[in-house]
Amino acid sequence: MQASRDKRDRATEVIARCQTLARFSEDSGSIRRTFLSPPMRECHREIAGWVAPLGATSRVDAVGNLRMLYPAENADAPRMMIGSHLDTVPNAGAYDGVLGVVLPIALLGALNGRKLPFEIEVVGFSEEEGVRFSTPFIGSRALVGSLDEDLLRRQDAQGISIRRAIEDFGLNPAEIAQAAMRDQDSVLGYVEFHIEQGPVLDNVGRPLGVVEAIAGQSRMELTFVGHANHAGTTPMNLRHDALAAAAEWIGAVERRALSTTGLVATVGAIQAKPGAMNVIAGETRLSLDVRHRHDETRNAAVDYLVQLAEDVAKHRGLRVQCAVLMDQRAVPMDTFLVSQVEQAVSKAGCEPYRMVSGAGHDAMILAEKVPAAMIFLRTPGGISHDPAESVEVGDVTKAIDCGLRLLDQLASSSEFQRKTTHA
Amino acid sequence: MQASRDKRDRATEVIARCQTLARFSEDSGSIRRTFLSPPMRECHREIAGWVAPLGATSRVDAVGNLRMLYPAENADAPRMMIGSHLDTVPNAGAYDGVLGVVLPIALLGALNGRKLPFEIEVVGFSEEEGVRFSTPFIGSRALVGSLDEDLLRRQDAQGISIRRAIEDFGLNPAEIAQAAMRDQDSVLGYVEFHIEQGPVLDNVGRPLGVVEAIAGQSRMELTFVGHANHAGTTPMNLRHDALAAAAEWIGAVERRALSTTGLVATVGAIQAKPGAMNVIAGETRLSLDVRHRHDETRNAAVDYLVQLAEDVAKHRGLRVQCAVLMDQRAVPMDTFLVSQVEQAVSKAGCEPYRMVSGAGHDAMILAEKVPAAMIFLRTPGGISHDPAESVEVGDVTKAIDCGLRLLDQLASSSEFQRKTTHA
Repeated sequence: MQASRDKRDRATEVIARCQTLARFSEDSGSIRRTFLSPPMRECHREIAGWVAPLGATSRVDAVGNLRMLYPAENADAPRMMIGSHLDTVPNAGAYDGVLGVVLPIALLGALNGRKLPFEIEVVGFSEEEGVRFSTPFIGSRALVGSLDEDLLRRQDAQGISIRRAIEDFGLNPAEIAQAAMRDQDSVLGYVEFHIEQGPVLDNVGRPLGVVEAIAGQSRMELTFVGHANHAGTTPMNLRHDALAAAAEWIGAVERRALSTTGLVATVGAIQAKPGAMNVIAGETRLSLDVRHRHDETRNAAVDYLVQLAEDVAKHRGLRVQCAVLMDQRAVPMDTFLVSQVEQAVSKAGCEPYRMVSGAGHDAMILAEKVPAAMIFLRTPGGISHDPAESVEVGDVTKAIDCGLRLLDQLASSSEFQRKTTHA
Repeated sequence: MQASRDKRDRATEVIARCQTLARFSEDSGSIRRTFLSPPMRECHREIAGWVAPLGATSRVDAVGNLRMLYPAENADAPRMMIGSHLDTVPNAGAYDGVLGVVLPIALLGALNGRKLPFEIEVVGFSEEEGVRFSTPFIGSRALVGSLDEDLLRRQDAQGISIRRAIEDFGLNPAEIAQAAMRDQDSVLGYVEFHIEQGPVLDNVGRPLGVVEAIAGQSRMELTFVGHANHAGTTPMNLRHDALAAAAEWIGAVERRALSTTGLVATVGAIQAKPGAMNVIAGETRLSLDVRHRHDETRNAAVDYLVQLAEDVAKHRGLRVQCAVLMDQRAVPMDTFLVSQVEQAVSKAGCEPYRMVSGAGHDAMILAEKVPAAMIFLRTPGGISHDPAESVEVGDVTKAIDCGLRLLDQLASSSEFQRKTTHA
């Protein structure tokens, strides 16, 4: 009971700390903390103040990731990483990313000075949302060594490059390579706690989700081209209505997704031209976003929908153009870590719920180099990227319990420690 | 043969004159001639120069309608009106409206001084398109006496009222009442030649259409309100997708129109919010334009589609709001005049094609006061409101033949002359 009480207090503190960090914002009255913005520095300073008393060191690497190291029981021990991101979207909630940095600090606190056979590095990534440079994962890309010169040249709306932003923050772009994981770090794996940002756990009534994979994603833009004609003088049988064609296709997109387990397919953007009440649309441009844990399923859906768009267009005497904007492979989480997480969730008294992350996360990038896993926390109402974003203190309590049990499991698993990855 | 040759020459001249008037434009390089714009004055002067040698008088009334009077064989004879509008949309073609003013002048020419038992008033209406004041039919409304103070106060984009525009053109708003038809004018009826502005006659291969009615029109705006959610993290079964709902409904709009003879229904404008690729639409606003010759059929379709929108919304856990923006009754053409036009079309060697006008025309306004009819000329490709708008010289020849035969029929019809309307 005492232990449980203790974890609940820690959970309450985690939530309070997320709310404290929410005050470090570029906007007054709402949360916005983009890559290397001034409030990010205050955020780092605040967090560093929390970890120092726990016996952890902290530093900011050359891309602005806050890297906190809790030592192992022996020198030269391998390293376990736990983290998430500290940047936010505009008008954000307090938990997306931030919770996954603050919660592992609570785990360090709960260890109460006890050392494990591996170091624990808690990482607060500087950039995941892609807001400032329309380029997500700047922080985690640096860790896996994929932040190349091309990316560094990208500019924000003010024409400032990533390289320049790094310099302006007082960091040295020449040291980016040193931010990457090195072989001698012997990284065992990466675990990320993150709010689900979706309604699934809330809907099934489970506090914690075990992420098996991060879905692959296709993004396309389609344009149906027909003929703009007078809405009054053109009989139905003589029309080449680009919006009616688009509507027929949108219906098919939805049906395909509904009939394919785990597939999500979304048309979120649409533009009809000329867009007048009394003119039949001559052109309709629309977006398609398709995600699934299996690339074959996703690709088959995309192929089917592109073919269907061509059939719809042909049948109606229109043309259709399709442009692929993104084709991102699915990223499976590490099988061993996933089963360990599942056990830990069970031991924490929750029925584990295996699921796929429909959104990208830092774990997706880290998985390129090290075994990675994610633990989702139920998001009430699925509401995220919104000031109303929340977490339940009970769920955070269970997540802390789960995290501690996971660390203990890994500490006692010789199998895990043999799996040391040489990045 | 000589007569036919003569009509073809007149048709060639009609087309050339339409092209001459096209030069009087507010824009260089394209046609735009809005209500009481400077080129309208040049247009009036040019046309007046054409009718004077034919023995017709011309004047500009207080709303800028050009009114040309060809006398009858006797004083105090009733009056037959023939006309259309002289204003244009931006980037217009040369024939919409203009042809219906120039062609009856060719009829006066073909009469070659011969007088009929009625006066012929050719009217070039100053405003039909509604471009400058977002208010159509300013010219014809003055003739039926419905141009009230409310309308006169409407302002254009520069804040100039209709009243002020009339004054600026050198006309006197106090004389608007005198522009209206008076009882003592004993108007027998109004006939309008107009390009079809649609593809129907071209599609069935007929040069001339006999308009039986001008369709009634409903315009609505609908808004489906669902929930904006993450396109990746929200499973299909937990969505409240406002764009998917709209697409389902657009399909039903099209099916209803396809299955109802003569009905046209169009969704031409659509806006999805937030309108991002990776966000499920939380709100979708769209327009509906429904037209039919029978108001009951149109109203039944609108009622059905509104109910269906509510069903679609309910089924998907959304709300829908519907706002009626326009509910304009159908206007039947005068039965006697329609049958006379049909006979005249036959005598001109064309198989008559009865049809409904899906667009509004001055004849719709005139029909409030006097028997009215319209004759459509085939529009190649249905292309109108576009510089590529055209007419075939052969079709104009047949229209002139039809017009002359119609005048002769009406001149010899004691039934028609008994029908004199006291406006």
